[in-house]
Amino acid sequence: MSYKSIAHRKQLQLEAQIPPQWRLDVSQIAPALLSPADSITKTAQYEAISVTNLPRTCGLLTDKELKITERYSVQPMLDAIRERKFTSKEVVLAFCKRAAIAHQLTRCLTEPVFEQALEQAQRLDDHLQLTGQPIGPLHGLPISVKDSFHIAGVDSTTGLAGLAFRPATQNSPLVDLLTSLGAVIIAKTNVPQTMGALDSCNHLFGRTLNPLNPRLTVGGSTGGEAALLAMRGSMVGFGTDIGGSIRIPAMCTDLYGFKPSAGRVPIAGTQEAGNIPGKGRISLQPVAGPIARSVEDLRAVMAEIVPRAELFSEDGIPGRWLDSSVGSFLLACDTIPQSPPSGRKKFTFGILRRDGLVEPLPPVAKVLDEVAQMLRCTPGVEVVEVPVPPALSKCQGIAGRLMGVDGGIPMIDLLESTGEPLIPWLKNRMKRGREMTLSQVGALQAQRAQVEREMLQMWTTRRATTDGNPATAASWTRDIDAIIHPVAPHPVPEMDRYNAVGYTSSWVLLDYPAGTVPVRSIREDDLELGKDMTAAVLGSWDKANRLLWDEKTVDRRVYLGSPLSLQVITPKQHDYELIQAMEIIDRVVTTERGRVSKL
Amino acid sequence: MSYKSIAHRKQLQLEAQIPPQWRLDVSQIAPALLSPADSITKTAQYEAISVTNLPRTCGLLTDKELKITERYSVQPMLDAIRERKFTSKEVVLAFCKRAAIAHQLTRCLTEPVFEQALEQAQRLDDHLQLTGQPIGPLHGLPISVKDSFHIAGVDSTTGLAGLAFRPATQNSPLVDLLTSLGAVIIAKTNVPQTMGALDSCNHLFGRTLNPLNPRLTVGGSTGGEAALLAMRGSMVGFGTDIGGSIRIPAMCTDLYGFKPSAGRVPIAGTQEAGNIPGKGRISLQPVAGPIARSVEDLRAVMAEIVPRAELFSEDGIPGRWLDSSVGSFLLACDTIPQSPPSGRKKFTFGILRRDGLVEPLPPVAKVLDEVAQMLRCTPGVEVVEVPVPPALSKCQGIAGRLMGVDGGIPMIDLLESTGEPLIPWLKNRMKRGREMTLSQVGALQAQRAQVEREMLQMWTTRRATTDGNPATAASWTRDIDAIIHPVAPHPVPEMDRYNAVGYTSSWVLLDYPAGTVPVRSIREDDLELGKDMTAAVLGSWDKANRLLWDEKTVDRRVYLGSPLSLQVITPKQHDYELIQAMEIIDRVVTTERGRVSKL
Repeated sequence: MSYKSIAHRKQLQLEAQIPPQWRLDVSQIAPALLSPADSITKTAQYEAISVTNLPRTCGLLTDKELKITERYSVQPMLDAIRERKFTSKEVVLAFCKRAAIAHQLTRCLTEPVFEQALEQAQRLDDHLQLTGQPIGPLHGLPISVKDSFHIAGVDSTTGLAGLAFRPATQNSPLVDLLTSLGAVIIAKTNVPQTMGALDSCNHLFGRTLNPLNPRLTVGGSTGGEAALLAMRGSMVGFGTDIGGSIRIPAMCTDLYGFKPSAGRVPIAGTQEAGNIPGKGRISLQPVAGPIARSVEDLRAVMAEIVPRAELFSEDGIPGRWLDSSVGSFLLACDTIPQSPPSGRKKFTFGILRRDGLVEPLPPVAKVLDEVAQMLRCTPGVEVVEVPVPPALSKCQGIAGRLMGVDGGIPMIDLLESTGEPLIPWLKNRMKRGREMTLSQVGALQAQRAQVEREMLQMWTTRRATTDGNPATAASWTRDIDAIIHPVAPHPVPEMDRYNAVGYTSSWVLLDYPAGTVPVRSIREDDLELGKDMTAAVLGSWDKANRLLWDEKTVDRRVYLGSPLSLQVITPKQHDYELIQAMEIIDRVVTTERGRVSKL
Repeated sequence: MSYKSIAHRKQLQLEAQIPPQWRLDVSQIAPALLSPADSITKTAQYEAISVTNLPRTCGLLTDKELKITERYSVQPMLDAIRERKFTSKEVVLAFCKRAAIAHQLTRCLTEPVFEQALEQAQRLDDHLQLTGQPIGPLHGLPISVKDSFHIAGVDSTTGLAGLAFRPATQNSPLVDLLTSLGAVIIAKTNVPQTMGALDSCNHLFGRTLNPLNPRLTVGGSTGGEAALLAMRGSMVGFGTDIGGSIRIPAMCTDLYGFKPSAGRVPIAGTQEAGNIPGKGRISLQPVAGPIARSVEDLRAVMAEIVPRAELFSEDGIPGRWLDSSVGSFLLACDTIPQSPPSGRKKFTFGILRRDGLVEPLPPVAKVLDEVAQMLRCTPGVEVVEVPVPPALSKCQGIAGRLMGVDGGIPMIDLLESTGEPLIPWLKNRMKRGREMTLSQVGALQAQRAQVEREMLQMWTTRRATTDGNPATAASWTRDIDAIIHPVAPHPVPEMDRYNAVGYTSSWVLLDYPAGTVPVRSIREDDLELGKDMTAAVLGSWDKANRLLWDEKTVDRRVYLGSPLSLQVITPKQHDYELIQAMEIIDRVVTTERGRVSKL
């Protein structure tokens, strides 16, 4: 069957799950008026108007529903349900309605599961009523997951027509884990065609819009989540990341994204169609993680998932996570972490300004520098400049080749089975290749190991001994607790213009935990930066990147008001320390923002 | 050049490193009298006479050297050096001499590095003298490593003529790590040809003998280490394990072997010649770990390595290891672990009696049952029977196919380059195959993931909820702390007769930590077990295994006095809990042995 008729049926199915009383007027959905098919190509028709306020003004949500969806972060929400200030059902209903509204404005959902979410919420309420106890630590929390996670009985198309109307037979382990904790999944969310693109756009569901500014990309591949979260249509969303698919959409929508080390959050049993079986194990392993509206919200869910990952999934590893009362010492003291993870006196941030391949555009470089300055003035924090490790420049290439080991063959076969054309971002980037030989992939993995070894030196100093004695164990120390780095070398670009993924994919290659922290919006004065841009071009990636700030090819005013974020990175499996580092930066940035707004 | 002339040169080089004054008389080395070449084939000429006492009686070691090499476990030895009861040089010299003696009796060494070890010991003594401080927590500890680890300036042939006289240019990360801690490597030790065999025998160095009984195999591939340790020629040895290469030689020589989870002990930068580059990363990853004479000795080195693995090697993962004063609570209380890792009241052992493919021979089944009985009578310990998980039977096949993904081509090329024939064990097992395609290996890894998922259920019970409510997080619990299982389905066999490796390789496939604990020797009454053996044969592996106990094909008396061990297994990355479990079993077994000897 042709992809068009499948898409038509699928869109009807999706529409049918949004009750008539939750529908917006046509005038209200003006910003998203294009049909799914038109949304893919006719992007110039979108206006640069934020839709984030519409749920508040549209009249569909009651005051209580607005309060539920706008005034709570995760822990207070869980407390409110436990204390029976709200029932789970009230909370879930409020978020289902808001998710439906968000979808009408941004096309963020693929599989609403409102009905079963409400049934589950009722069971949770009954349980609390009956036993006086919540079913688990996330009792009643409305959450959403990327379309690639399986929910039994629901499609996992990832936007591919060839996978429609073939519901999953069992839950992904992460879905089981979250459900066992009491969380309620209200919907699955949209992704790019093939999941290997950075605009969340496909022929089955159309294009997800960035609610902050529909002219800019929402990012991908966890773009539906980002749009939904930015609209406050869910409390926390779960995505996956291999090239930046959690961190990039978080950056595009002013949210916090957390890409853990492999094994911290179960990714097993996630959509694998369109890839050769076992691909993650022999090439590059995608990882699962949360997107949320604050570091505390990330922390609240990670604290419950990490210690249980090993019980629910074959890819889970044992993990300890200090509980929030111990872990949030940062909140208890003034600005100083009292006991940095390394046991050293200060928490040391390394500033890694570039990757050696693509020079960050001026506003990106500037915001990194601003945060470095703020950190330098923070008691208890030390800041050091980190020279670009030569090995880092090799990471993007190795990661890219590992992602393509199967030559895209199973994916292209799947697309061709329904005649589905490539989306604009993929048009010049994807073509049928050849499957690599085992020896070729082995050689790539050996290169990766070599790069990993060289990269150790970024964190660890091996001090030469002066007396000619053998190096002592004490002379090998970790000097840096966390690195700050751009998420991308450019601001949030217009649709279909996202450029280099090396800034994010390299940390998956190295299995370093990495997260996105929003810093501030682009201001008028940022647009004046880099008027001449005379520095030598580093290569083709750098050249392409410059076009995003070149006044001959872009109107810089399109970036005005869009979020600037930075990326925080810690060594392999130091996920808890990443949350700590993100918390420090967030506090410093928020304090500064408060100071500036008072001036 | 032909392998024979290379071997001749290599053997001369090895001989030259044993000082004349450390040589035994010809009459003393009678048990090992065959030439290296003859040792490979003329195995029937060996007599069943233990050589473990010869270092004591040969007259080459002084009383003090005997005391140093025989009366100390690791921690007291470190204390004695720190307290200047012995100098490092005295200790290292004693062990070098004893290693030289061990080598003359068992052919266990490949690369003695006595001279540089003595120089290093002198530097350590100077440092302690000058600063009053040891250089690190293992200051002065004489250790040895399998030939596959690199020491700069020294060959890493792994017994292959084609690799001789090509010294390594840098140390393996583990060698750097151990040296930085103050340990002194005194020698590298012998392995089987290709390292993919279970008799430590090759054409470059000949066959390593089992010092307990030269008629029986010493096991492999870390066989040289096992022989050296059993002769007390080193304090701790480091090997690698992919099919059982740490646990099997430990079983063959009455020692304790510890195969950690991947990442706990750096294996990076270890011999990779003869395999396609990056093979471990795309197929099955070998792991490094220690062999020692007691659980405390294993603990003493693991406690120092685990927290530093991530600093020294790209494959290292962060790890905590309770220090011995906290961790050895088992030694402080009577027999009861006061706080099992799971937080439950008791430490629960699961008894996994078989793998479903090969039925353990009667003495192996009996000793497992004896230990199960002892554990049942131990306060604070709970014992449950574990049914054979159906997935377990698939592990051996998947592991075997993953080990052979490159069709043996690079190894066979290397052997053919010097005309080296296969050793007896490999003769009917190895032939040039074909490299698998990437898709084939991906499919194997997908099967492995499925098996891993099914195996989770061995540890974790998902209790059904009775009220129809969603399963709660609390209902997913780990019920078993550790499993006991045979190391092999047979006792220590005669040379070249080691049969199934599924009992050990499966736990590498699953990345479960697993260790060998010796229990007791085979007694006369064990030989009477299984006189009829009428049970149905399970398959070809089972059939081959029976021959090792079939009086028509073996004289059972050959096993008399040989060690019977068992294997202890914990879930992925629960390495600390493995040491705890091994410690409990060892205490229970030792207590029982004391009780029996008093009767």
